[in-house]
This record gives sequence, structure tokens and C-alpha cells, in this order.
Amino acid sequence: MFTRKIAEFAIETPSSTVPDEAIVAAGHGVIDTLGCALAGVVEPVAEIAARWAVENGGRGGVTVWGHSTETSAADAAFANAIAAHALDFDDSHPSARGHASASVVPTVIAAGQAAGANGRDVLAAYAIGIEVAGKMGRGFGFGLLGGGWHPTAAVGVIASTCAAARLSGLNAEQLQRALGVAGSEVSGLVRNFGTMTKPYHTGHCARAGITASWLGGAGITSDPNILEGDGGVFDSYHANGEALEELAADLGTKWEILVPGNFVKNWPCCYSNHRSIGAMAKLLEEHDISADEVEEVTVSFLPGGDTALVSREPKTGLEGKFSIEYVIAAMLLRDPLTLPTFTDPMVMRAEAQALIPKVKRVIIPAEGKFAGMVGYNIVEVKTSRGTFERREDIT
Amino acid sequence: MFTRKIAEFAIETPSSTVPDEAIVAAGHGVIDTLGCALAGVVEPVAEIAARWAVENGGRGGVTVWGHSTETSAADAAFANAIAAHALDFDDSHPSARGHASASVVPTVIAAGQAAGANGRDVLAAYAIGIEVAGKMGRGFGFGLLGGGWHPTAAVGVIASTCAAARLSGLNAEQLQRALGVAGSEVSGLVRNFGTMTKPYHTGHCARAGITASWLGGAGITSDPNILEGDGGVFDSYHANGEALEELAADLGTKWEILVPGNFVKNWPCCYSNHRSIGAMAKLLEEHDISADEVEEVTVSFLPGGDTALVSREPKTGLEGKFSIEYVIAAMLLRDPLTLPTFTDPMVMRAEAQALIPKVKRVIIPAEGKFAGMVGYNIVEVKTSRGTFERREDIT
Repeated sequence: MFTRKIAEFAIETPSSTVPDEAIVAAGHGVIDTLGCALAGVVEPVAEIAARWAVENGGRGGVTVWGHSTETSAADAAFANAIAAHALDFDDSHPSARGHASASVVPTVIAAGQAAGANGRDVLAAYAIGIEVAGKMGRGFGFGLLGGGWHPTAAVGVIASTCAAARLSGLNAEQLQRALGVAGSEVSGLVRNFGTMTKPYHTGHCARAGITASWLGGAGITSDPNILEGDGGVFDSYHANGEALEELAADLGTKWEILVPGNFVKNWPCCYSNHRSIGAMAKLLEEHDISADEVEEVTVSFLPGGDTALVSREPKTGLEGKFSIEYVIAAMLLRDPLTLPTFTDPMVMRAEAQALIPKVKRVIIPAEGKFAGMVGYNIVEVKTSRGTFERREDIT
Repeated sequence: MFTRKIAEFAIETPSSTVPDEAIVAAGHGVIDTLGCALAGVVEPVAEIAARWAVENGGRGGVTVWGHSTETSAADAAFANAIAAHALDFDDSHPSARGHASASVVPTVIAAGQAAGANGRDVLAAYAIGIEVAGKMGRGFGFGLLGGGWHPTAAVGVIASTCAAARLSGLNAEQLQRALGVAGSEVSGLVRNFGTMTKPYHTGHCARAGITASWLGGAGITSDPNILEGDGGVFDSYHANGEALEELAADLGTKWEILVPGNFVKNWPCCYSNHRSIGAMAKLLEEHDISADEVEEVTVSFLPGGDTALVSREPKTGLEGKFSIEYVIAAMLLRDPLTLPTFTDPMVMRAEAQALIPKVKRVIIPAEGKFAGMVGYNIVEVKTSRGTFERREDIT
């Protein structure tokens, strides 16, 4: 029933009834995602993905961003989604517990370009994709991430399928078939965080979404209720979130793109670092702390709050993005935490590597599990002239 | 360490050292898979997949079987693997607990065609793919299927990556990178059994394997030990099988393609039906049972033995392949269980639908879980002139 509800919502909501505020927010999301993708196209993983799209594909006339290349919608969306997530600077969505825009924006632009859709239809498809991503994420709860999967990937493949199907002119029954295929494409392990395969996940979502949509339109059959029930997507991927009936009833009410909305990153690294960065920045400023007087820095997380921060001893720029140890070390070195902070040589500089072992993680005793964007952090800096502490609640 | 061992074995075993018996068995496997694929290319799902490959792809010069079409290796392998599994008549492998050939054969033929490889190299790559599939399946045990995933898909994506990498000239380190990507492509839900999305799974494996191999060769980074450890593939997908150290030590010793070897199907339906078919055929012959005297048929399975038989009230030919109820009903109607048995009209014929409710399943109390090809079945037929029973141990 939930699968059907999602399909009906995604297909039967006219673009004209998507609120103007949601369309405006969608425009901001597209601009932010495009900006991240254009900064990302020169990253090694994005260059590899673009080369793959060129070698593999041919037909379609859909642009590979940052390249004078056109290919099929599926392969272009694949490369573009990898570019969008290559820097881990793209927005996140708290309900999705990950990056929904990085797969949905390239999907709607590719599917929209292939279909010759107008701007409002593309923006509405993106808003609807975020709506689906948010509801999927709320249904999964923390169980998905706790089970070892990257929520960005699991949520994105379903959201991208809905967004692509809408722009490709599918009806609800065809989308329901496509969602059965998409349910068999849910994958992406957290263990690949801090490597190029993390942005590969968003490429997988966009390509799988466009492929599943096309196959659903062409009449493929699949389990019609793939999301719900024993052995369905929520069950197999350890969902422990909100009741599906409530999520279905909420579809298109407050609009996830407005409430809570996309969270735009201030720093190009994993969101799970962000509250601690805010706290640390204030401590550095208020107490004029210098690196050589620091004895230890303790960062306290609620349970699950550091699950995404997979690197405790980072050696590469990508690993540095998923390491509170490196982020704090860089801040102690008065690094502005911009794109050049997260390169291999910067992570490997001796001053940073010397500070990394001084950063400790502590888990705050609490009930439940908290994804990176939800909860609070406490940073405590022990120096030769005293200990300073700060709690931060806002990312 | 297991990931590295798999990569080293797949790359560093020269074709000349693969035993001749394994090469001969590989030849038989290729012929059987090609036969199933050529019978399958006219199935609706295979036609849809071939259309998708044509629409999406362009470059590459790799043949879409049964069509006068060439496309990229990834897209051709996708369509061909779907054709190979479309009829569910292709071979299975007991260690893999599913259909390994249906994804590995199209992968090695596409990657081999793209690379201009010779026959022995293609056959050796297939034998090595089956070796990896077998070891993966033995590592997963029953946990993977019990968790809701289609072993064919999970095992196939890893095996296809190894087979493609070998033919594409990767070194072990590059394959290890590719395996990190492949680990993030493990998916495919049992809930899609009895629909066209089941054969889609083998298409996914072949395409993902060729894609991951290409990306590994191009320098993508990933978790180097993706198969093992907390949050790795075995852990996240609920493996409860043999110890990885032992599996690694066994690589290339007896050769899975020889011991236990591929199981070629006698009937074009799920293997989990096969022992019961054997028992029922003997009962029908020995006791000359007619459909109108049958009061009830009880089929007894060991725990897990009927997990793949997802349809208890089938309405389509594909659902009929995953329904012991329909298979027994068709046998009572003296149906030869050939390809025409498993069409929508045949499943929906009134005589069959009337017999289906007379077939009951019973689970035999036993320790452990048993996939369809492993264990035994008991069929008991209660007729107006007495009850007949038979146990079958061999598929």
C-alpha cells in the first residue's frame, strides 16, 4: 500500500499544485547542487565517471556536465550525480539522513532534458523526489545506517525512480512496477565512506532510477508492494523509523523541501563534523587557542552520531572529510576548512598528522541512535593553561 | 584479507593452469547458458532489456544475443544476462545457492569480445567466476537468502567483477578496488521472485561487474577489504556460512565448476521444486494416479527449502515457476513440465487452478536452513483409494 501511495503521489500531483515556495526552494537546491557538481567535475572520481559515460554510451543528447559531451540520460545522470557528490560539499536532508539532491537533481535534469520538459516540471519533479526521499528516510529511521548502508544511496534510488518516472510520462501503475525494480537496486555500504566509491553511490542511484523508470514504462513486472511487508525494502534494510501509514498521509503536506528543508553545508566535509566545527570555531576565537598549547581535544557524540565519520587515522583528502580527528587538527592549524583543506598533501602534512592523535571521541550515554545532522555535540579542549568546553546544537 | 585473496586468485591464476577438466566443464556451462539465453530472448523481459540496451548504448561492438545489434560491453552483458535467466531454465550452483552462470557467462563473453580474448581465456575466466561464486555462496551460507536477498544476485555481482577484471587485463590491486565498488552493488530482493525483475537481477550483476571492473582499472578507490569485517558485505548481508580463511585456502583446489559442479535443470522452473517433481513423477507412474481421485498432496520441505517458492496462488507463468502448488497441479494433469507449461494461460487454466488448493506445504522439523538444491523432500498423495508417499534426495 505504501509503494502504491508513493507512486500515486509522485505521478498524480500536478506541477501546478506544488506550492510556489517549494518550487523556489527547489530552484535553490538545483543551483547549489549544480555549483557543487561544477566544482566537482575536476575531481578524479568525476573524471573517471565522465570517461565511463562517454565510453559506454552514445544515444540520447543529454549533457555530461563540465564536458562537451552528450550521452544517454542514464549514463549522463550517472556521471553528473558522481560529480555532484564528489566533494561531499552538496546539501543534505535531515529526514533522508543523507544527500538526496546529489542523485535527484542530476536525475531530473537528465530525464527533463531527454523529455524536453519545462523548468517548472523539472523543479516540481525534484521537489517530489525530495518529498519521497524524506519519507523514505523517516521510514528507515536509524536502522538503515546502523545496518551498514549509506542512506543517501538507499533513499536516492527510490527518489530518483519517482522523479524520473514523472518526467518520463509514466502512470502510477508503471511507476509501481519501476519501484519494484528500484527495490532490487538498494545498496551502497558505509564502509566505502572516505573513498571515491561514496560518490559512486549517487551515480548508481541516478542511473538506477532512470533505468528502473524506463523499464517500468516498458512493462517490466515486479513485486507491486516492494517497499512494505516481510522481505520488502524497509524490512530487509532494517527500518526502525516512523509508521508507513503516517508517512503516506503526510506526503505533500508540509513538503520536505521546506520543512525541514535541505541543509546547505558551510564546510566541504561530512555533516557529522559540522556541529563540532561550530563549537570548535567559537572556542578557538573566544580563548585564542594555539595548536602548540593543546594537550587533548575530546569530541562527544550522541550514540550513532559519528557512524559516518569512518576515518580515525586519515591519509587522504577524502578520508579527511570523514574524520573529526583531522577536521579538529586542521582547525587548530587555523585552516579555513575550504576545498583545498581536503587534499591528500594537506591531510598528510606533518603538523596535522601530529595533532590527529590528540583528538578523542566520546559517546554520550543516551537512548536511541542519532544520524549526523540530528542531535548535539560537545567539544572540550584541554590546554596547558586550562580546559575549555562548548556544546553545539545546530549544524 | 579475503577480498585480497579473491583478487589475487582471480588475476594471478594463468589460464594454462586451470585444469583441462574445468575448461571442459566450462564449455558445457557456456553451451547450456547460451541455449537458455537463445530460448529466452523472445521472452518479454529479454525483449525489454534488449530494447533498453539499444536505446541506451552505442559504442563497443559487443553483440546483443538474438538481435542484429551491437552495443557496449556493459549494456550487452546486461541484456544477455537477462535473456539467460528469463526462463529460469539456466543452471544453478549448489555452493552459490543460485544461478551463477546466467550472470558470469554473459559477462565473460561480452568482456572477452570487447578485449578480443581467445576461447580458453574466456572459459578460464568463467571457471574462475564460478569458483568465486561458489566460495562467496559458501561464505554467505543461508543467511543471505534468509535475510531477503537473492543469492544469484549477491554472489553474481562479485563473481562477474572478478571474471570481467581478468579478461580486461586488470592487476590484483585494480580488481581489489573494483571489488569495493561491487560490494556497494550487492542487492536484489527475493520478493521479486516470480516476476520479470528476478531475471533483471542477473542483468544487474553482469552490468555492475563490467562497470566495477572498468572503474577499478581506471583508478577508483574503495574500501580494500569490502567483503570481510564489520559492515562489510558478508556481515551486512547476514552471512552465516563457512570461515573465510578456509574458503580462501580452498580457492582453485577442487574447482567449484567440477565439485559439486553446475546443476543443469531438467525442468524450466525453480530448483526448489525439482526433488518434489522427481518424487511426484515416480508416484504418478507407480500408482497411475489420476487428477480426479486426488484429495490432497502434501509436500514436505526442510526448513528454508521452500523460501524461493514465493507463489502459493500463482496467476502468471513466471509465478508458476516459483510455486510447488502449480507444479504439482500441472503434473496431476499429466503436463510434461516444458517451457509451454509455464505461460500465463496454462497457469490460469481452470483445471490447474482447481487443483492448486489441494497442494499443502509442510516443514520437516530439523536444525539449520536448507536452500532449494540442498536437502530432501517428501511428497504424499492422498487419493480416494489410499495414500502414497515418496522421499527424494537428489535434484
